[in-house]
Parts: sequence; structure tokens; C-alpha cells
Amino acid sequence: MDILKFESVALDEDKNLLRLLDQTKLPCEIEFLELQDIHDIWNAIYKLQVRGAPAIGIAAAFGSYLAALNIDVNDFESFFEKFHAAKEYLNSARPTAVNLSWALNRMEKIALDNREIEISEIKTLLKNEAIKIKDEDTQMCRKIGELGLTLIKDGDGILTHCNAGQLATSKYGTALAPIHLGRERGMNFHVYCDETRPLLQGARLSTFELIADGVDTTLICDNMASQVMKNGWVNAVFVGADRIAANGDSCNKIGTSGLAILAQYYKIPFYVFAPTSSIDMNIKNGADITIEERPSEEITEMWYKKRMAPEKVKVYNPAFDVVSNELIAGIVTEYGIARPPYSESLREIFERKNTNG
Amino acid sequence: MDILKFESVALDEDKNLLRLLDQTKLPCEIEFLELQDIHDIWNAIYKLQVRGAPAIGIAAAFGSYLAALNIDVNDFESFFEKFHAAKEYLNSARPTAVNLSWALNRMEKIALDNREIEISEIKTLLKNEAIKIKDEDTQMCRKIGELGLTLIKDGDGILTHCNAGQLATSKYGTALAPIHLGRERGMNFHVYCDETRPLLQGARLSTFELIADGVDTTLICDNMASQVMKNGWVNAVFVGADRIAANGDSCNKIGTSGLAILAQYYKIPFYVFAPTSSIDMNIKNGADITIEERPSEEITEMWYKKRMAPEKVKVYNPAFDVVSNELIAGIVTEYGIARPPYSESLREIFERKNTNG
Repeated sequence: MDILKFESVALDEDKNLLRLLDQTKLPCEIEFLELQDIHDIWNAIYKLQVRGAPAIGIAAAFGSYLAALNIDVNDFESFFEKFHAAKEYLNSARPTAVNLSWALNRMEKIALDNREIEISEIKTLLKNEAIKIKDEDTQMCRKIGELGLTLIKDGDGILTHCNAGQLATSKYGTALAPIHLGRERGMNFHVYCDETRPLLQGARLSTFELIADGVDTTLICDNMASQVMKNGWVNAVFVGADRIAANGDSCNKIGTSGLAILAQYYKIPFYVFAPTSSIDMNIKNGADITIEERPSEEITEMWYKKRMAPEKVKVYNPAFDVVSNELIAGIVTEYGIARPPYSESLREIFERKNTNG
Repeated sequence: MDILKFESVALDEDKNLLRLLDQTKLPCEIEFLELQDIHDIWNAIYKLQVRGAPAIGIAAAFGSYLAALNIDVNDFESFFEKFHAAKEYLNSARPTAVNLSWALNRMEKIALDNREIEISEIKTLLKNEAIKIKDEDTQMCRKIGELGLTLIKDGDGILTHCNAGQLATSKYGTALAPIHLGRERGMNFHVYCDETRPLLQGARLSTFELIADGVDTTLICDNMASQVMKNGWVNAVFVGADRIAANGDSCNKIGTSGLAILAQYYKIPFYVFAPTSSIDMNIKNGADITIEERPSEEITEMWYKKRMAPEKVKVYNPAFDVVSNELIAGIVTEYGIARPPYSESLREIFERKNTNG
């Protein structure tokens, strides 16, 4: 297995199995799961062995195809009853993940739209649809990467936060797409990864996928970003986004807003990378985005379940924060780079999407 | 033992022993060491069971007194030979700690200046000198705390970084002195402690001493400071300093410069607390302060000696950074609060010190 060109989620068409890079074991154990049974696939999604909304959707699409393969009946009604049950089961692995149900609904529609043909042919169409879902994701990430590459030049230093990389998608990622795409073209960037407390996605995941791709990668603690910027090592900051409001305010992993403020102070451009599906034009601005708070043990017990803080201490553990639009130099989507003022440019992005799509 | 009013370093005059709060076991194990033997005291300093420059100096002064107690001779030459050896031995525990040799030299001078009197009387003078060293430190911290209290009002929210508290001094601390002094007067502050990666002095030590003093204390990860400030919870940022240049540029634990930039963005006053002994008028500005880099394992292996980052990753681990003087609202010393422009105000502080001292 070639670690240097790993995929976080892949279908082995010869062996009819789903291959997942087990993200719970990274960075030190590189273990690929080879799954065929639908219960094992459900488990892998549930236990975050595959994570990142696009990657989860793709895994579920492949999972529903593998489930279909195992349905040994000849009439559509019997086939669909079992297929629908499998789909609903997979969909229950993480009920709130939008991409999961979106991908599974696409798969189900393929079956329903082709009820007149042979079951074996339906199975082939399901395989093709699952592969298409993955390919479309790769295309989207490649477009985002392509546009991101116009913002930097070979040899630049890029600072990133959390993991908006290929581990979370089919390939390339979003914020890390320009780095990986640049590598394919022989470009070399110097990437600084914030460790991203409390769950260490930067230390564990971003460093892993960048090193696997041969990128010059330096890990820092979140509180070292100011010093790295002051040293003149950072030409641009690239981050992902979980949700973007109509005015460009961008919600992302906790720590992102602080980075944006530092970038402004040191006059370094700060870019947000996200597919248009993450932009919610119904949200007027960041104030309307609720910040999820998570359990205090994520902070007090570090990673190894031993307390590093007194029992009685209060903890504030917001999972996300919102970057104010005036701190963002550009929002990079698969339909172009939006620039300030975002109320206009994001609307234009959607007009372009609706025209092209 | 009353944990609520603990001292990090104390002399038990009845039992003739040095009592240290073992800081390597905090925050979960509260263990006081009771030491009499000079080798045990050397070990405690070496192993950082007592830390913080002032606390180390005081521990060594008490240690040299306890050594003197055990010297059972009647002539000064014999006494001083053994006493000097003990002093040099203690001084070797942490060769670069300025306060260590400063305190031990003061003790030695007491012996030399009183060579004509009885050995038993010399021992009493040594005890008095060690207690005086501690008392002077307490006075200095109290003065700093007193001045710090003029900057905030009851009920305010204070954000702090690392540990510039009573654990590092005889009492009160520097940046945390106003909080502790305020508590003595029935005031209540809401203190937000950055955990302070990689070594977690905020999570382990500052939260401990604040909670022990009954302060409302909230632990956050370093990257959450921006969100806490945005929430409007922080009225002032209080930090310590390891070294301050003549122009006010202040070197402190890594992460401090980022905090200062965030504070400016959110229009929150940022104050540096330090005794005048930390101000070096021979250093023109922060650019002349060399930033120490420390081992990568502090970051990659977290606190439990298991790697949390890939083997091949590079690590940048600066231990300190420098806060630019234009970000500092005031520098609080035992001789007054310096305000911008610092080139003038710090000179005035030293003029005041030289007049008073």
C-alpha cells in the first residue's frame, strides 16, 4: 500500500470492499480498514474512523453499493426493500451529517429511477453513482485548489489550522488543496500547522497528510502563530470553514478568529476555503451562528484521560469561532474566489453556480 | 495544612525544616515536602519541585541557613569553610537562575560581616536574613499587587497567561498579585487562564493557586482567548515578564505577543507585571532579546510521553516571545506603573528606585 498517495476512502473494485484509512489511529499507526459488511461500515462512520463531511458521504455511498451487491434477489420490490433498509441503517450512523443523507439519497434515487432494468444492471449503476459522487468531490476540491494556487507562489510559507485536507475529502481537501495540487506540479511550500487544541487535528491529521505528500511541514502550538508570523515565515493563512454567512463572516474551528486578527496585524492575507455547500445565504451574519460548546474533559484531561487541571476549575470549551468578514482577504469556492464586499461577491458566486449547474 | 492559604516555600522555625509545595505534582496531587538535608534541598531545586526565580532564591536562602544549623564547630574559620561549601553546592542546582546566586551571596555576606561574634549568633542572623529575603519579596509583590488593583474594579474579568503567581514567589505573585490581594479585601474577580502550551503552566499552576484562593477561575485553551474577549468577558489582560527592554518591549512566555495583539483588536488594556529586577535598561529593544528554542518533544509528545504527531514532522518550539511596546497599556513594577512612552517612564522608575533604595 503506497502511503505517499493514500486515499482516506476508496473502493476496491476487484475485491469489492471499502478501504478506509483509520483516522482514529493517526498519526502513529497507519492502518487501512478493509470493510465489506454493512455493520462494519456503519461502525467505522460512527466511531469516526472516517471523518470529514465529504469523506463520510463517499464512504456511505460505497457502503450502500456493497450492501446492494449482497442482495441476492431478482425482483425489484424485494431488492429495493432490502436496499432501502441498508440505506436507512447507514444513514443512522451520524444523523446530523448532511453529506451522509445527501449521498445516500442520491444512491436510492438511482435504484428507484431504474426499477425497470435487471437487478445486476442496477448494481452496476449504483457502483457508477458512488464512484461519481467521489469523482465530483475530487473535481470540486481540484477547482478549489486550482483557484487557491493563484494566491501563492512556489516556495511560499502557508499557515493552516485544524484539518481541512484530503483526509476529510476524497482528495486534495479544501484549504490544503492548493498545497497538494502544487505538489503534483512539483511546487514546494512550507506549511506551518497549528496543533489545534483541544483535539489536535492539526498535530495528528494535517501534519500526517502533508508529510505523506512530501510537503515541508512544521508543527507549532496554537499560541506560537504570532511568533511564526513575526519571523516573516508566513505568506498567507489558509483555513477551511464549517459555515459561511451571506456577509462573509466565516465559522471555523476554535482559534481561527484569533489567527485572522494576527494575520491582519502582521499584514498577511487570510483566506477561507469552502465549497458553496458551506455558504448559507439565509444566515445574515456571524452573530446568527450559534457556537457549540463541548465537554470540559477535552481540555482538562488532554488526550490521555489524566487530569491536567484542578477538579474544581470551570472550563469554557467552544468548538468554533467566527472570523469577521473584514479580516478575510478572499473566500475560495469551486465557483470562484469571492472578494470583499462579500454580500455582493457571494451572491455572484451563487449566480455562477446556478448558471453552470 | 491549610491548602487555601498555602505558601510555595516556607521555613518551619519550630522543626527547623524547609517546607515546599511540590510543583511537579500539581494540580492533582498536593504534596508538601519537608526538607532538612542540603542534598534533598538541592534536589528539589534541580527537579523544579520549587520553581519561579524568587521562590528558588528564598528556598536556597533557607537551605543555606539549615546547612549552617548543622555545622557543629565553634571557630569561625571552620564554620565558614563548611558554610561556603554548602552555599556553593546549593548554587550549583540551577546555575543560570540569577535569584539563586543573589540570595546565597546575601547569606554569605551576613556570615562574613559577623565573623567576630558567636557562631550561634551568626546562625540566628542567617535565619533572620533568609526570612528578610522572603519578606522583601512579599513586600515587592504586595506593592505590585497594590498598584495593579488601581487598574481594575471588583467583579472584573481578567485574562492571564502562564503562571506569574504566588507559586513562583513568596506570596501574591506579580501578574496575579492584584487578584490575590483583592481576595484579601473581599473582592471577586473572574479570571480566565490560558492553558499555556506546551508545558501547561496555566492549566496546572495558575488555576491551582487561584482556586485555592477561592477565585472564580475558568480554564481555556490558548486559541480560545479571542472568543473569550469577543464575548466581552475580559476587562484587562495581566501577564508577567521574564525580561523587559529599555523601550518597554516585554519578553514573556510564548503566546503572550499574540494575546497582546488580540487585546488591541478588542480594545482591552494589556498590562505587564514585573519587578524592576526584570527590566534591563542595557537592552535597547525587543529585537536584542534572543528567543530560546526548546526540544520538539515538548510539543509532539504532549504531557504523557506518547507521540501525537508524525515522526518526520519538523517542530518549532520557541519558549518566549516579545510583546511590542505599542501594545502595552502599562508596565507595573514595585516602584510604580510605567506608561508609554516607556523610554522615559522606565527611566523614571529607576530614578525612583535609586532614590528610595
